[in-house]
Amino acid sequence: MEITLPDDRYLGPDPKQKDIAMQLYVGVKNLPLVCPHGHVDPRLFSDPNYSFGSPADLFIIPDHYVFRMLYSQGIPLERLGVPRADGGEVERDHRKIWQLFADNFYLFRGTPTGVWLAYELRVLFGITQKLTSETAQSIYDQVAEKLTQPKFRPRKMFESFNIEVLTTTDAATDLLDHHKAIHASGWTGKIFPTFRPDGVVNIDAPNWRKNIDDLSAASGITISNYKSLISALENRRAYFKKMGATATDHAALVPHTAELSEAEADAILQRALRNQSNANDAARFTAHMLMEMARMSSDDGLVMQLHPGSFRNHNDIIFQKFGADKGCDIPTATEYTHNLRPLLNKYGNDPRYTLILFTLDETTFGRELATLAGHYPSVKLGPPWWFFDSLNGMAHYFDQVMETAGIYNTAGFNDDTRAFPSIPARHDVWRRASVNWLANLVVRGIVDLNDAEDMAHALAYDLVKKAYKL
Amino acid sequence: MEITLPDDRYLGPDPKQKDIAMQLYVGVKNLPLVCPHGHVDPRLFSDPNYSFGSPADLFIIPDHYVFRMLYSQGIPLERLGVPRADGGEVERDHRKIWQLFADNFYLFRGTPTGVWLAYELRVLFGITQKLTSETAQSIYDQVAEKLTQPKFRPRKMFESFNIEVLTTTDAATDLLDHHKAIHASGWTGKIFPTFRPDGVVNIDAPNWRKNIDDLSAASGITISNYKSLISALENRRAYFKKMGATATDHAALVPHTAELSEAEADAILQRALRNQSNANDAARFTAHMLMEMARMSSDDGLVMQLHPGSFRNHNDIIFQKFGADKGCDIPTATEYTHNLRPLLNKYGNDPRYTLILFTLDETTFGRELATLAGHYPSVKLGPPWWFFDSLNGMAHYFDQVMETAGIYNTAGFNDDTRAFPSIPARHDVWRRASVNWLANLVVRGIVDLNDAEDMAHALAYDLVKKAYKL
Amino acid sequence: MEITLPDDRYLGPDPKQKDIAMQLYVGVKNLPLVCPHGHVDPRLFSDPNYSFGSPADLFIIPDHYVFRMLYSQGIPLERLGVPRADGGEVERDHRKIWQLFADNFYLFRGTPTGVWLAYELRVLFGITQKLTSETAQSIYDQVAEKLTQPKFRPRKMFESFNIEVLTTTDAATDLLDHHKAIHASGWTGKIFPTFRPDGVVNIDAPNWRKNIDDLSAASGITISNYKSLISALENRRAYFKKMGATATDHAALVPHTAELSEAEADAILQRALRNQSNANDAARFTAHMLMEMARMSSDDGLVMQLHPGSFRNHNDIIFQKFGADKGCDIPTATEYTHNLRPLLNKYGNDPRYTLILFTLDETTFGRELATLAGHYPSVKLGPPWWFFDSLNGMAHYFDQVMETAGIYNTAGFNDDTRAFPSIPARHDVWRRASVNWLANLVVRGIVDLNDAEDMAHALAYDLVKKAYKL
Repeated sequence: MEITLPDDRYLGPDPKQKDIAMQLYVGVKNLPLVCPHGHVDPRLFSDPNYSFGSPADLFIIPDHYVFRMLYSQGIPLERLGVPRADGGEVERDHRKIWQLFADNFYLFRGTPTGVWLAYELRVLFGITQKLTSETAQSIYDQVAEKLTQPKFRPRKMFESFNIEVLTTTDAATDLLDHHKAIHASGWTGKIFPTFRPDGVVNIDAPNWRKNIDDLSAASGITISNYKSLISALENRRAYFKKMGATATDHAALVPHTAELSEAEADAILQRALRNQSNANDAARFTAHMLMEMARMSSDDGLVMQLHPGSFRNHNDIIFQKFGADKGCDIPTATEYTHNLRPLLNKYGNDPRYTLILFTLDETTFGRELATLAGHYPSVKLGPPWWFFDSLNGMAHYFDQVMETAGIYNTAGFNDDTRAFPSIPARHDVWRRASVNWLANLVVRGIVDLNDAEDMAHALAYDLVKKAYKL
Repeated sequence: MEITLPDDRYLGPDPKQKDIAMQLYVGVKNLPLVCPHGHVDPRLFSDPNYSFGSPADLFIIPDHYVFRMLYSQGIPLERLGVPRADGGEVERDHRKIWQLFADNFYLFRGTPTGVWLAYELRVLFGITQKLTSETAQSIYDQVAEKLTQPKFRPRKMFESFNIEVLTTTDAATDLLDHHKAIHASGWTGKIFPTFRPDGVVNIDAPNWRKNIDDLSAASGITISNYKSLISALENRRAYFKKMGATATDHAALVPHTAELSEAEADAILQRALRNQSNANDAARFTAHMLMEMARMSSDDGLVMQLHPGSFRNHNDIIFQKFGADKGCDIPTATEYTHNLRPLLNKYGNDPRYTLILFTLDETTFGRELATLAGHYPSVKLGPPWWFFDSLNGMAHYFDQVMETAGIYNTAGFNDDTRAFPSIPARHDVWRRASVNWLANLVVRGIVDLNDAEDMAHALAYDLVKKAYKL
Repeated sequence: MEITLPDDRYLGPDPKQKDIAMQLYVGVKNLPLVCPHGHVDPRLFSDPNYSFGSPADLFIIPDHYVFRMLYSQGIPLERLGVPRADGGEVERDHRKIWQLFADNFYLFRGTPTGVWLAYELRVLFGITQKLTSETAQSIYDQVAEKLTQPKFRPRKMFESFNIEVLTTTDAATDLLDHHKAIHASGWTGKIFPTFRPDGVVNIDAPNWRKNIDDLSAASGITISNYKSLISALENRRAYFKKMGATATDHAALVPHTAELSEAEADAILQRALRNQSNANDAARFTAHMLMEMARMSSDDGLVMQLHPGSFRNHNDIIFQKFGADKGCDIPTATEYTHNLRPLLNKYGNDPRYTLILFTLDETTFGRELATLAGHYPSVKLGPPWWFFDSLNGMAHYFDQVMETAGIYNTAGFNDDTRAFPSIPARHDVWRRASVNWLANLVVRGIVDLNDAEDMAHALAYDLVKKAYKL
């Protein structure tokens, strides 16, 4: 059996609509990829000879999208080579891991992971056969051989992918050594950092105390009180900005925002520094620091991204054994209208401030997010995130957001991925989903073809550049 | 470029389905428009020579659907001529306002406002060119010229729109002078009031104390306690009914219902009259008054409408500067099953009582609203409201409501608009969305063509008349 | 007018997609029906000569899907022959009941009940005319005549329906006499019980005290404390298992789970036995007993089903007059991520444990349920339930669940019905909805035809057998 990857894939079946969609697709398929809000390791680009390792290293071991599905069917993570927190024994035979993956590849039928992998195997690696128990070892050989070739070095792939700019996500304490090395190397690929301060502004973050010490060290400002914390953060933001950053990134279980007095904020911070703060302190401090981050963004112009609603490390057994980001982060219902009001009342009308909102709760798209973005000048909506970065998730997004917000209050697409080789596949899905939606508007007489062409270009390229100031 | 407005617009692309849809559409497109639950100013009809003013007066300045989108992209409301609460300076050159609107008209691509405006410009005003920066002034001239013609007086438009009846929404304290003038004028257009008591039954409403005084004056009953409040409300309901009203209209952030004893209700009211009530008093009093309004509806037969879930005036800066209804009302998640139980247990089985429910939380359509309407004899569901009065909103409504409630527990369509000239466009969207949904049921063998014809007629005309007793 | 029931019914209109759907349908339409999680009375099969009674007995009087819709339009349940709790007078003329049903049959246009009834009347009873006021009595005669024929005895229908296995739902206190009689009769139809302990583990259940006494009697273990309650439950589970049960079934308004110490659990139980427990006791005990049921399922291998979120007997007047299950159970928003965490942390990684989750809150499909099932090995998702066991409900389910969970973390279909003759209609709807979804994946190049054939077979037959260990 061959891998199926027809030219008109993902498009609705109506012939007239599909013709229009293909016509629109031609106009966007080769546009450069603009990739903010990603999680690719900058190490891939600081080392010009970086190699992805084995096929299992590339596709399975680091990708929680992949191994969580296998785990859901009872396959232990140890058998997939996922490293244990205690350094204990896991499968080291990558051919065995690959075989297990191939034996269970049918689990990905109809999933976005299945869609991306089909593209990567076929287009990037030139594999024509479907991955099955029988073809597993032959495909392993073909992929492994390709991975030894120079054109499979990350820098070469970056160029062949036609990536215009890619941003990483980096802790506030990160010294950005890899970014410095990239700049110093003379290679012209644009790789910029993004400032993510969760580990220092959420006083209940794992290792918070150590992170604060690292922040003191990184900024050269000893953090002994609220005032010095703010100074240190401003110092690091300035450094990130100097290194090319145009954005910050913030997570929170609940997107609550509320301002404390400086005295209150300092009192909580002092308790935290003495290891005497409680859950209420943490919630109030996070709500306050989101306000403070908005204040800093108004001042320094860094675009603020907020993606709340993920209950991290839901499965304690897996978290204890394997650590964070192991496929057991579960979404929760999320409220924006009440929670963001303090922040938006203070900063939402400020032309210097941009807030890009994400969600894992699709019910908020039409009800809260599109209406907020359709009013507040500062608010833009990020694309469907994580589980919803999929053909259906995109269809829901177009269906529920665009009538109220219009496309011009959205931030285009970003791939949000650790899996560098999946980037072209992900952008291709978005571009096809976009033109499919637009073609339906055209065929129903809602927009004309000229407008649709503009809109397709905006969704593929212009909106993301504008929203992220890239 | 020409405005696109094909005959088969908004219909799905499948040729067989579209043929059936067009066949159904022929049967409903010319039916009279029945327009309850509207916000058109009765002044338009009391003055036989009422003029809409300039194109900007007609399309931009009073329409928060339009200017909120422009504001979301950073255009100050002052530049759009929106009047300030303090009477301060705003743009007065309507040609400049129109140009700014035209320059940014692309923002409405794919939005319901874009759909309605295309219809109005093309069908009502005979404009053939798309509105762009280049065509702005020429289109301004054409529209302005039309607005001087006698056939663009509201009464003439009412007749040419084929409106059978239109109801306005009026405060309980309104003396209905314009309605009286309409009746007295001998003009035969049916314009009826709707009784909206929010300003007097919600003790935390802005200007509540003044509203109570106005209610005393309007009813001739001095409101000094709960008993006299009830008498005054009953008095006004009777007057509205005499003036042709068949319905009441109620908003609430949360649709909580709970009965107080008369002593409790009176105690809260007394506190409010002394300006000593608190937020809890207000919530309990509103919950109680919803029950009391249901009791009165059971007695006098006025249909009760409830549309909860809008967080009004979310953006305090805009509210302070420009007042209410300025495009910053944001929906919230809404709960009906628990909240409405006390009311429905007491009145929901009463054949004299009708409760029409609306929502801004589409998740409640299938889960709560369709199941309540599919059981309680008193409950009917209003059409998609506000942000959801759109092609997608209607598709969601048909998709999520009808299997459980059936169409006969719904209240057809209403346009809910202040923008009188948009009424035919809005009904046309509903009628096309209806036949598109029905054609899909036919082509999938779920209903036959005969049933679909009946259903199309019911959705366009019969259901709304029956639900609102018009 | 003839009943419409085209061969390609329920399938999307695109010709290419429909061809593929029909091709897939051929492969599954005749597969045996696997029917866990049902509510058919085992009495139908213990008595070889069981008769369904009149057409009204079969289609109207016991079916709350049918009479709730008629009630919603103001038809009293008494006029439909629904028995009163006090034994008072109700309509006894089944021809009059049938006529009233026929007069109002238009209410079911576009509803799942309308879809099932069309199938039953046409395919099972050979009726060709649509049910209307005019045809009512003639159709009554035809159905009544059929019901006298031997092939309309339940055992014969079971065989002609090609049911491989059917499970009933039975109180923990049920002695399973009918199941014993079925086994003893020598008839080979597989009818197994399902263990439903709600009446004894929820201390606020109606008649709880009596249920506890019945449980003592059924198990032979006098329940005087928590320890003996657990023993009695284990005893009954073992008995159910011996009688062929492979599953348990649990309802809860809120799916909260939390473990108590044995001392706490015992203290609550003792208060309940003395009739001194409160609402908080009941909530905590239910949350604890869900944990305990999971513990027992890990031990004995019975598959645990949980379907929360139904507000039972919302209409108190109907409940007082007619009792439970009278069409006034209303769904509520339901939270799984936080609520199930204690249970899943303790048992969700255990290969011996299966938890099948249902919902009446479709918003949880993509957000919580698919993500839980896509991670925890123990979790599988049940099909769309109750109001959502419909063409649209299934489309939403495929659309929102499958990308994240994949089909292999779902439990196929079950019909969940009391209405035995509707079983083939319900499975047919699922099979058609499945192939329609799959054909769309094929035509968009997301899965190939080979995979789609496997998936169709899995959805129709394999997944349900595996999930329920049948």
